[in-house]
Amino acid sequence: MEQLSELQCEACRADAPRIDGDAAAGMMSTLPEWQLLDVEGINQLHRVYKFRNFKLAWAFADRVAELAEAEGHHPSILLEWGSCSVTWWTHKIRGLHKNDFICAAKTDLLFED
Amino acid sequence: MEQLSELQCEACRADAPRIDGDAAAGMMSTLPEWQLLDVEGINQLHRVYKFRNFKLAWAFADRVAELAEAEGHHPSILLEWGSCSVTWWTHKIRGLHKNDFICAAKTDLLFED
Repeated sequence: MEQLSELQCEACRADAPRIDGDAAAGMMSTLPEWQLLDVEGINQLHRVYKFRNFKLAWAFADRVAELAEAEGHHPSILLEWGSCSVTWWTHKIRGLHKNDFICAAKTDLLFED
Repeated sequence: MEQLSELQCEACRADAPRIDGDAAAGMMSTLPEWQLLDVEGINQLHRVYKFRNFKLAWAFADRVAELAEAEGHHPSILLEWGSCSVTWWTHKIRGLHKNDFICAAKTDLLFED
């Protein structure tokens, strides 16, 4: 399978196909630390990253924000003492686009760096 | 009334008094944009700040994180496209300490700057 983290987000139209069912399950298998959430009928990708203090969590949140700007796709980023939670989904299609899986994979690379 | 935004957070002990009831209502009157939330029995101060784009929201989130480090007191900061939501409470006393009202007032100053 292609490496998600090596892909770029593409422009997303409102009629772009959602990724769900078997396709979503297949991609989730490459993102073992991520949870697939259903938030009021909208599928989202969610992961909590843990850190030893606030500063490390904050530095990570900043790297995720940089990634968001670079990809032109923006997650929700929850920064708290010792943790940073990241949630990707695509507002325009009210669910998951391939972009979200790409960005989740890239977020993991920021953590491993 | 003293200006909350001119005070510094003090060290908080687990047996520090919570601020609730009339005392909380009095302080809330000086923080008109803030909501008092009850999250599973824990009172929290919450405000959503709106911005024209992601970069402005991100810059504000960074200022709030700087404030948190300066005060030694850390809120949850939710950064999304066009908004930054800030929630203050004190884990150690499972509720609101005077520090939380001080920090809410100081967060407002960061927005007005």
